[in-house]
Amino acid sequence: MTYRAPINDMLLALNHGAGLQAALKAGHYGDFDADMTAAVLEEAGRFASDVLAPLNTVGDKNGIKLADNKVTTAPGWPDAYARWTAAGWNGVSGPEAFGGQGLPLAINAACTEIWSASNIAFGLCPLLTLSAIEALDAHGSDELKKIYLEKLVTGEWTGTMQLTEPQAGSDVGALRSRAERQADGSYRISGTKIFITYGDHDMTDNIVHFVLARLPDAPAGTKGISLFLIPKFLVNADGSLGERNDIHASGVEHKLGMHASPTCTMTMGDKGGAIGYLIGEENRGMLCMFTMMNQARLGVGLEGVGIADRAYQQALAFAQERKQGRGIGSKTAGMDPIIVHPDVKRMLMQMRVMTAAARTICYATAVALDISARSPDAKVRTEAAARGALLTPIAKAFSTDIGNEVTSLGVQIHGGMGFIEETGAAQHYRDARITAIYEGTNGIQSIDLVTRKLAASGGEAVWALLDELGGIVSRVEASNDPAFGTTGAKLRDALGSLERSSKWLLEKLASAPNDALSGATPYLRLFGSALGGCMLANEALAARDIDGGSDATRYVTVARFFAENVAVQAGSLERTVMDSSESVMSADAVLLA
Amino acid sequence: MTYRAPINDMLLALNHGAGLQAALKAGHYGDFDADMTAAVLEEAGRFASDVLAPLNTVGDKNGIKLADNKVTTAPGWPDAYARWTAAGWNGVSGPEAFGGQGLPLAINAACTEIWSASNIAFGLCPLLTLSAIEALDAHGSDELKKIYLEKLVTGEWTGTMQLTEPQAGSDVGALRSRAERQADGSYRISGTKIFITYGDHDMTDNIVHFVLARLPDAPAGTKGISLFLIPKFLVNADGSLGERNDIHASGVEHKLGMHASPTCTMTMGDKGGAIGYLIGEENRGMLCMFTMMNQARLGVGLEGVGIADRAYQQALAFAQERKQGRGIGSKTAGMDPIIVHPDVKRMLMQMRVMTAAARTICYATAVALDISARSPDAKVRTEAAARGALLTPIAKAFSTDIGNEVTSLGVQIHGGMGFIEETGAAQHYRDARITAIYEGTNGIQSIDLVTRKLAASGGEAVWALLDELGGIVSRVEASNDPAFGTTGAKLRDALGSLERSSKWLLEKLASAPNDALSGATPYLRLFGSALGGCMLANEALAARDIDGGSDATRYVTVARFFAENVAVQAGSLERTVMDSSESVMSADAVLLA
Repeated sequence: MTYRAPINDMLLALNHGAGLQAALKAGHYGDFDADMTAAVLEEAGRFASDVLAPLNTVGDKNGIKLADNKVTTAPGWPDAYARWTAAGWNGVSGPEAFGGQGLPLAINAACTEIWSASNIAFGLCPLLTLSAIEALDAHGSDELKKIYLEKLVTGEWTGTMQLTEPQAGSDVGALRSRAERQADGSYRISGTKIFITYGDHDMTDNIVHFVLARLPDAPAGTKGISLFLIPKFLVNADGSLGERNDIHASGVEHKLGMHASPTCTMTMGDKGGAIGYLIGEENRGMLCMFTMMNQARLGVGLEGVGIADRAYQQALAFAQERKQGRGIGSKTAGMDPIIVHPDVKRMLMQMRVMTAAARTICYATAVALDISARSPDAKVRTEAAARGALLTPIAKAFSTDIGNEVTSLGVQIHGGMGFIEETGAAQHYRDARITAIYEGTNGIQSIDLVTRKLAASGGEAVWALLDELGGIVSRVEASNDPAFGTTGAKLRDALGSLERSSKWLLEKLASAPNDALSGATPYLRLFGSALGGCMLANEALAARDIDGGSDATRYVTVARFFAENVAVQAGSLERTVMDSSESVMSADAVLLA
Repeated sequence: MTYRAPINDMLLALNHGAGLQAALKAGHYGDFDADMTAAVLEEAGRFASDVLAPLNTVGDKNGIKLADNKVTTAPGWPDAYARWTAAGWNGVSGPEAFGGQGLPLAINAACTEIWSASNIAFGLCPLLTLSAIEALDAHGSDELKKIYLEKLVTGEWTGTMQLTEPQAGSDVGALRSRAERQADGSYRISGTKIFITYGDHDMTDNIVHFVLARLPDAPAGTKGISLFLIPKFLVNADGSLGERNDIHASGVEHKLGMHASPTCTMTMGDKGGAIGYLIGEENRGMLCMFTMMNQARLGVGLEGVGIADRAYQQALAFAQERKQGRGIGSKTAGMDPIIVHPDVKRMLMQMRVMTAAARTICYATAVALDISARSPDAKVRTEAAARGALLTPIAKAFSTDIGNEVTSLGVQIHGGMGFIEETGAAQHYRDARITAIYEGTNGIQSIDLVTRKLAASGGEAVWALLDELGGIVSRVEASNDPAFGTTGAKLRDALGSLERSSKWLLEKLASAPNDALSGATPYLRLFGSALGGCMLANEALAARDIDGGSDATRYVTVARFFAENVAVQAGSLERTVMDSSESVMSADAVLLA
């Protein structure tokens, strides 16, 4: 089963749901020429269908191999990576001064969805490189940039992010890897990192590791962490590769999914310490990490969107082919394809609309991050930064929760075949599962949303967003289009729930913070449901005005289904946020009895 | 990580939530002496912890092997099965005349949960044997019973149920296996069956296959299907094993989970046809299947409960050990166990209460089936049969959906470790996935609930149940116990939603059946949420009266958390049932565009 990028859906989401067109008109994108957007996505889609999608099963079946501290990827992977970078896909949004195309994040977001959908384990590698680029570009010295940045932007070398240690997962501040200052200004780093994605592989000549470690005199906790660049091979003055550095993969994990993506234990210091170079200032490593967190989290959200869309496409094709039973009033001879059954239609629609909502939320996050970097107007940049910061945890957690739910529905639609690995539906289900965990668990995203993003400036970013979303609902209501069904009313209710929950949480943050924390997860779900519902409605309104509304029925139905099946949960989620903190906080009586 | 059967929770669920005590008092259980219940469960729990739980990982890692049409199970499995049958566990609820203990289904239901929790792939084998026993006991000739029934009841031989063929999954009527009458009264069967659980294995000397096939002159569809008993080895007149029959495993599936349970392709007729014996009447095979469907579906529901509880126990232990971050206001030095974080508490509570609700629903189904078979009063038997029929699809689908959700939360609580197979959390997640599919997909359960069970006698069984549940809510309200929080109000609302949705569906079944079908899945979820909430509240009320209420806080908190986090969704599910059929039925405009 192959994958085809849903270009029309993506363009509508990008241009209208996520507001790219409006931002362009308002001049927030500077001199970016958006005419090529469709062509870029179509080309990305072709590459993904032709090269990456067929390798997805190959990667799952073959996995990776570790021998002599060297990782070998699955057959065909190094070649595919070479073709992918040669075509320029690694540098879509990379800085032009270093070989990138300098396109907006929004365009790269759509591409990231495409790579993830066609081959999520493949697409993960450049996601990490992207974070490395961001860290180096923002905080690296000119000398380090000169040596490493272009290689990373073009993808000639890949990057890794090394935070986690056995005792330091979500609590990064607990890490223990040590860095010693050297007379020449470099550092010697030793320690062990775990769960390092693409920590080693055979797709490039060199790998540039970005490693968090602690200086001997560093303060405890997150304020004593520094970020170092550690190349797998040292780089000579002429740019050629020098000696092998003292960092290597000493183990790989046997995982539920993402079999083709090596998850390495990295050992530094067997021979006296890996040579590393400081990024930014000593003890300010967490600041560098925070810089790149938005993009990395958005990238994982897009993995959720991509894997969900892949699962949807496969389930849809299966439901049109597989014949079982007969529809009510069916006049065909023999069995009907299972797509005639209302319960199957419901599952497929659920998959479709959840994916669409997550897609638009992710794209909107990218647009906000773009504007925060590109707008000529400082006030616009500031507001966009706040919007981007607010949307990021939702883009990450809502989309990856949906990735899990949609891939599970994909298995379900396949019936017994879904449980058989050969079918491929189960691979999506397995692969998706990590996205809700890495790059900050979804629980941590929820807490970030409540304690930092909602709380910033007394909720200002939320109120501004609610205002905009309310405008969309008014336009749905004013359309008087019966095809919207109860969409307007459902979204109006959802926004009310979001507003009341937000106010309640703000109050509790001050008076009873554990109560606020206990409502964080249902609040994020409520936020995503209300936001996604309004965005899909906005797309439907736009579709009514494009090409004489030829696609309007489709997108209005998508918006309606989402409103009536997903956004409608806002009311009960509001009650859960507000009413259940007492039972959460009495949990010990149950759990520890 | 081992497993300990939660005996206290199980006894409260059985005796009070599921109504065993009340049924005993009312005389519905005849002369059954319930005093031994606790002792049976404790003994089952010990066996499960000591023998079965340690083999769960062994089975997952080693899987099964097929060579020369013979399946070999994982190391230690044949021995464990021998010990399990020797201890009498296969015959707990089997007929006493054939070597069983004749205990109620309710007791066996609790045992089934224990086998599934400790080792779901192991427990699946006797579940199938149980169905075989039921079919043979109800419909087999005395001669067949004499030869086969005791062997099946003791577990000396196992049973298989063979319905599925490549073109005939949910649509059993489409099967093509052929049966030819023989002069001696036996039949020769040929054809291919797929997805046959424990179709072959090395744990017993013989296997008794129950196979659906079609006679040459049979009518098309489900009215032309007959049920045959086909032994792996023919049985001589003296009871000794004779020739190998013409049925064998020709393939095994590579599955997402349940690796230790062989899922076989069975081939019959390579040598002229497998010798089989008719069960019941010709062309009445579906009737025999329906007889045993309630118990089999309940068994799968209990698998959902069991795997959920296993995942919960593992996640709870991990959350108490794993240290990351600090709780608000924590005074300890260093990091706290993650269980201090409200979001982790929420996840654990969600796991706990969902499992508890599913457990009680399953046990209540067993009690209803017991009463329908045991009560001396015919009217009571009839009503109980209707109750059991109504609850069965909910027990199956709600519990297995919950099995998937709870095992997913179990992975999430483990963070990055959850994605690593070594941890074991991922195995539960993989193993659970099939339970929502086999023995009738959960979509089919929902359709069964709406079109058959709700529709029976104009909803009579639902109204009778609503009456009872309303009484529980009144007692919660009358208790004036502030620890219940908003439990009473939430459950009252949920019952209102259930009643209105039920009436709406009954109307639509007559006027627009596709609308009713499109609401079936959210309706089942609504039903399970309202029902489970009331049952947990009933348990909490009982706990307040037992042992001076020493456990009351625990069970009241469980009931409250469920009401405020799960049952509270009833309102939005009601709206989904009633408002979304138009968007489901317009789905083609989206899906086929």
